[in-house]
Amino acid sequence: MKTKYLLPLAAAATATLLPGLGLAQDAEMSTAPALETSYIFTTLLFLIGGFLVFWMAAGFAMLEAGLVRSKNVTMQLTKNIALFSIAAVMYWLVGFNLMYPGDGWMIAGWLGPFFAITSLEPVGLAAEAATLDYASVGSDFFFQLMFCATTASIVSGTLAERIKLWPFLVFVVVLTGFIYPIEASWQWGGGWLSEAGFSDFAGSTLVHAAGGFAALAGAIILGPRIGKYGKDGKVNPMPGSNLALATLGTFILWLGWFGFNGGSQLAMGTVGDVTDVSRIFANTNMAAAAGAIAALILTQVMYGKVDLTMVLNGALAGLVSITAGPLDPSLFGALWIGAIGGVIVVFAVPMLDKMKIDDVVGAIPVHLIAGFWGTLAVPFYTEGTSFGTQIMGFAAIGAFVFVTSLIVWVILKAVMGLRPSEEDEVNGLDVSELGMEAYPDFTKG
Amino acid sequence: MKTKYLLPLAAAATATLLPGLGLAQDAEMSTAPALETSYIFTTLLFLIGGFLVFWMAAGFAMLEAGLVRSKNVTMQLTKNIALFSIAAVMYWLVGFNLMYPGDGWMIAGWLGPFFAITSLEPVGLAAEAATLDYASVGSDFFFQLMFCATTASIVSGTLAERIKLWPFLVFVVVLTGFIYPIEASWQWGGGWLSEAGFSDFAGSTLVHAAGGFAALAGAIILGPRIGKYGKDGKVNPMPGSNLALATLGTFILWLGWFGFNGGSQLAMGTVGDVTDVSRIFANTNMAAAAGAIAALILTQVMYGKVDLTMVLNGALAGLVSITAGPLDPSLFGALWIGAIGGVIVVFAVPMLDKMKIDDVVGAIPVHLIAGFWGTLAVPFYTEGTSFGTQIMGFAAIGAFVFVTSLIVWVILKAVMGLRPSEEDEVNGLDVSELGMEAYPDFTKG
Amino acid sequence: MKTKYLLPLAAAATATLLPGLGLAQDAEMSTAPALETSYIFTTLLFLIGGFLVFWMAAGFAMLEAGLVRSKNVTMQLTKNIALFSIAAVMYWLVGFNLMYPGDGWMIAGWLGPFFAITSLEPVGLAAEAATLDYASVGSDFFFQLMFCATTASIVSGTLAERIKLWPFLVFVVVLTGFIYPIEASWQWGGGWLSEAGFSDFAGSTLVHAAGGFAALAGAIILGPRIGKYGKDGKVNPMPGSNLALATLGTFILWLGWFGFNGGSQLAMGTVGDVTDVSRIFANTNMAAAAGAIAALILTQVMYGKVDLTMVLNGALAGLVSITAGPLDPSLFGALWIGAIGGVIVVFAVPMLDKMKIDDVVGAIPVHLIAGFWGTLAVPFYTEGTSFGTQIMGFAAIGAFVFVTSLIVWVILKAVMGLRPSEEDEVNGLDVSELGMEAYPDFTKG
Repeated sequence: MKTKYLLPLAAAATATLLPGLGLAQDAEMSTAPALETSYIFTTLLFLIGGFLVFWMAAGFAMLEAGLVRSKNVTMQLTKNIALFSIAAVMYWLVGFNLMYPGDGWMIAGWLGPFFAITSLEPVGLAAEAATLDYASVGSDFFFQLMFCATTASIVSGTLAERIKLWPFLVFVVVLTGFIYPIEASWQWGGGWLSEAGFSDFAGSTLVHAAGGFAALAGAIILGPRIGKYGKDGKVNPMPGSNLALATLGTFILWLGWFGFNGGSQLAMGTVGDVTDVSRIFANTNMAAAAGAIAALILTQVMYGKVDLTMVLNGALAGLVSITAGPLDPSLFGALWIGAIGGVIVVFAVPMLDKMKIDDVVGAIPVHLIAGFWGTLAVPFYTEGTSFGTQIMGFAAIGAFVFVTSLIVWVILKAVMGLRPSEEDEVNGLDVSELGMEAYPDFTKG
Repeated sequence: MKTKYLLPLAAAATATLLPGLGLAQDAEMSTAPALETSYIFTTLLFLIGGFLVFWMAAGFAMLEAGLVRSKNVTMQLTKNIALFSIAAVMYWLVGFNLMYPGDGWMIAGWLGPFFAITSLEPVGLAAEAATLDYASVGSDFFFQLMFCATTASIVSGTLAERIKLWPFLVFVVVLTGFIYPIEASWQWGGGWLSEAGFSDFAGSTLVHAAGGFAALAGAIILGPRIGKYGKDGKVNPMPGSNLALATLGTFILWLGWFGFNGGSQLAMGTVGDVTDVSRIFANTNMAAAAGAIAALILTQVMYGKVDLTMVLNGALAGLVSITAGPLDPSLFGALWIGAIGGVIVVFAVPMLDKMKIDDVVGAIPVHLIAGFWGTLAVPFYTEGTSFGTQIMGFAAIGAFVFVTSLIVWVILKAVMGLRPSEEDEVNGLDVSELGMEAYPDFTKG
Repeated sequence: MKTKYLLPLAAAATATLLPGLGLAQDAEMSTAPALETSYIFTTLLFLIGGFLVFWMAAGFAMLEAGLVRSKNVTMQLTKNIALFSIAAVMYWLVGFNLMYPGDGWMIAGWLGPFFAITSLEPVGLAAEAATLDYASVGSDFFFQLMFCATTASIVSGTLAERIKLWPFLVFVVVLTGFIYPIEASWQWGGGWLSEAGFSDFAGSTLVHAAGGFAALAGAIILGPRIGKYGKDGKVNPMPGSNLALATLGTFILWLGWFGFNGGSQLAMGTVGDVTDVSRIFANTNMAAAAGAIAALILTQVMYGKVDLTMVLNGALAGLVSITAGPLDPSLFGALWIGAIGGVIVVFAVPMLDKMKIDDVVGAIPVHLIAGFWGTLAVPFYTEGTSFGTQIMGFAAIGAFVFVTSLIVWVILKAVMGLRPSEEDEVNGLDVSELGMEAYPDFTKG
């Protein structure tokens, strides 16, 4: 839970610790950490969590580079490093202040209240000058920025192999500077969704489904890759060029997810908080494993052969599924929630193909559909939440992100054009758009 | 050292710190961390150590994918992500409780005492309700699980390119649910080996040699790859398809090993403990470097050419060698212990080939033989240990793991069959078993 | 800032915290961490920072393996793992003591004061016996060692594809054992440069430019690759064989840099210090993003096509640029400093080619030239520094490293010979020098 204003329902248990913390000021012989020590621990959680989520940017880059054909690898890599960089600038320039609008941290800069320069603490902050019950703004900004970037990473996979570089990057500017911060603000900025009782601990809806909806809107406007769907309704497989990279990317994402979910505890300065972070790590790992195993068994049963790309996406779907509520479930809870995520992927990937929505890496099943499942599953373990509110929140964010994204894609299509020429697409974007092959020494079949 | 019951010999020095800790309760002006702070630090050590050891799963996947031929890469990747996922479930379902049988943490679940659901702490644990002298169960479970998974990772490399997917995965079920937890329990669960004075700080024997023995049993039952050993006694080299991946995997493993060895200090809440963790980091790095340099020089001297795969395995052998005792040696001690590990690999790899034991990635030299060396070397630096007890412990665990593994492999061979058809093996397991190439865009020579 | 003797200018602000720390001893109800807690935090910073900078060794290996042609990949990988291993041994054997000559930690060993075995703390250090105002020697040694290794990593990229293995490794011995420790000692060892007011927080000059100067000297003595520069002045592109690896390497370096710069705060035990570390993380990320975006836009504008390798090097140049002063700038400061780093790369790469200095991966623009820029930029934000002193310090270190490196290269050329035969170079070093291809299953174009 990330709101800084409300005490979310899932965190209610933490409140029981406050007396323990208060004890430090009353008792003669306290065992509790000093206030400054708590501040250091929570700041450290954000720094570690933040660099782990940063690492997910590399995971998406490798996953996507491995799942596209070799003629589009340079382009996919370029999009991934560029989108992260753009997110880093836009979230600073606009996003952070837009997402936490009531925040005292916002310093109205030379461009007005929204276009403000985020002001970090002064160098060598004195302990007396700090608000010791949270963490440093710098660490929080660093951590939150990574979630914004993740949202954009999801989009690039779906739209791979057929979208030009610059319209994609312009969309990233809008997504990371405006669309994501606004919808995330509704919950984590203390907005109306959090007031309504919606619960999304680390972002099954706010990050993953949001990225999935932006990708879905793009996929509809953009249309499928040339040759993907035959006139006879046949789906032509376009296998990824490097499954070792795709597997590496999945492992990187799995690793980064410990920071994604664990860091979202937003506190590590008490026994209760660090124990909760531990629960989250264990549950996150379990959900990923269960998602992978579910896809492993299911593809064997359904197709007679295990499908590695489904296993990878199964692990990722397990991770997305647990992200809305990684704290409260038991390990068994994480197992079945994650396993259903893996099942979803195996059924949703061919379903999208039937609808002729071309999702190159399976990001919509993994992030949007499993994100819905994870959001829906929260009330099984988290008191004070309801299926109705969860569906309502998901629908609200989905509608907002989908519609705004659709508008942006339509405008970009009209103004810049989204697709390269047919010839360029067939030749591959690496040569036609960038003039640089990813694997120039290897002849292609 | 991982036992939670005994105060191991190597940790005796830590006891001298207890007065310092006690001081916090007596002195008016204490410099010691509060008890809760110590708990947070040690929990954090497990979380950081745990995600670093998790990362080793990616390291094994990349190392093995790089060292097999391109026609078996998808299979090797599938095995690696599947084995980790299975280990995650089996260690939770059976292993953790089996490994720490006297543990008060075990909650008898719906399936009886062994098949129990590990119960983590409640959400928002109150400090008063916690046992503050160790760490959270969730973090400990997360950390220990990774060691169980590592044991299975070792097996997959040796048996690559010729074993079918499902019998391998069934073996992983037995290994991670039963064989590993039982033998590890003898030492880290406070069992008879730890009572006998055996010393294995982070698992040269319990993890690495155990994995190596399971792999050896498999390699004997399975036999070599078709064409590996000619009738004239000639060994046919089957070079790995991607040495960049293999090198990446080695670097990943090296990085993960800081968590593997450092986290095994099992405490970070005092000056003495964190300083010991630092010693372990420095020694671990030194042993890896020395192993790599030893293999570098030795292959130059013996063959007139440096052999990169030997250098990579030399680094890994250095790491395995220091794992039984990474705390007590000086940096010079870590250097020569690691260097001998590197030397072992250069001699053991061709030796295995002479015995016609086909170990695709060199896991038996690296993990079993260097694991023996590391276990044997402990008494050079650790007081209270003896060469006799070290050999005895290694032999006991080796015999148990080898015999039980052999039985499982024989049963699996009889029931499921271990090997694909000759034709399928020659065509590569990717196409024949999985129907999916790892690098479909690149023509093969 | 890394000196242990002087209170550097940039750290002056920290001094304002000392009263806060002192408070812990006076006030009846202190909020400050206990002294031992501070020691644990700072030691932990070095351990986390250290493993992140270790990870940069993998980053350089992947970046360079991706940017050389496929016929030289095995060699490049071999050089990278070997140079790290050599640095680990040489920095222990000579470097650390040479770099901190006045250090009480130095134990004169069996080889005299310089060739001394670094003595870590005893196992189970008692808190009373520790110097609690810093961190454990083991963690500090571990952290500092990684900087020494980084310096050597920079050299290998520039000289790729045309230098024999062993003369390169001998150079690494001299660089990591002597040249780097001596010049780094001038600043971080409390030497004359730090007394003169030079400021280099994490090593834009001491690490990056130093590596760049050693590489430049080597490139001049070695000459360009065969066929790189045509007789008509034409520059023949020799595209890298695997841009996915190069991108992965860049992401790894970016991740590791959080440890590189953040750990160089050298303290995490107070609110002020951990908040400063957070600033550094946020600034480091911003500079990298800005460097990437600058190169992205500039290559589009100048060449009509985005150049991925320039974007990657732009991100790295942004990182190098902020390294001399990652603490004091605002986020906007980090943005423009990093962006200029990215611009520098786009102009410097072709400039070097005009000078017929063949720098295979662009290490000289990234590390030397952007390193100069980063060093020069410090006075914009850091009080008490001056452009003159910054230029003087850069020139002093540059001259020392360049001249000593040149001498070593000339001697190595005379004694061992630096280059393989023309035929061997054309065939690729993998086959001719090592007899082992990196990608043997893939036919080459």
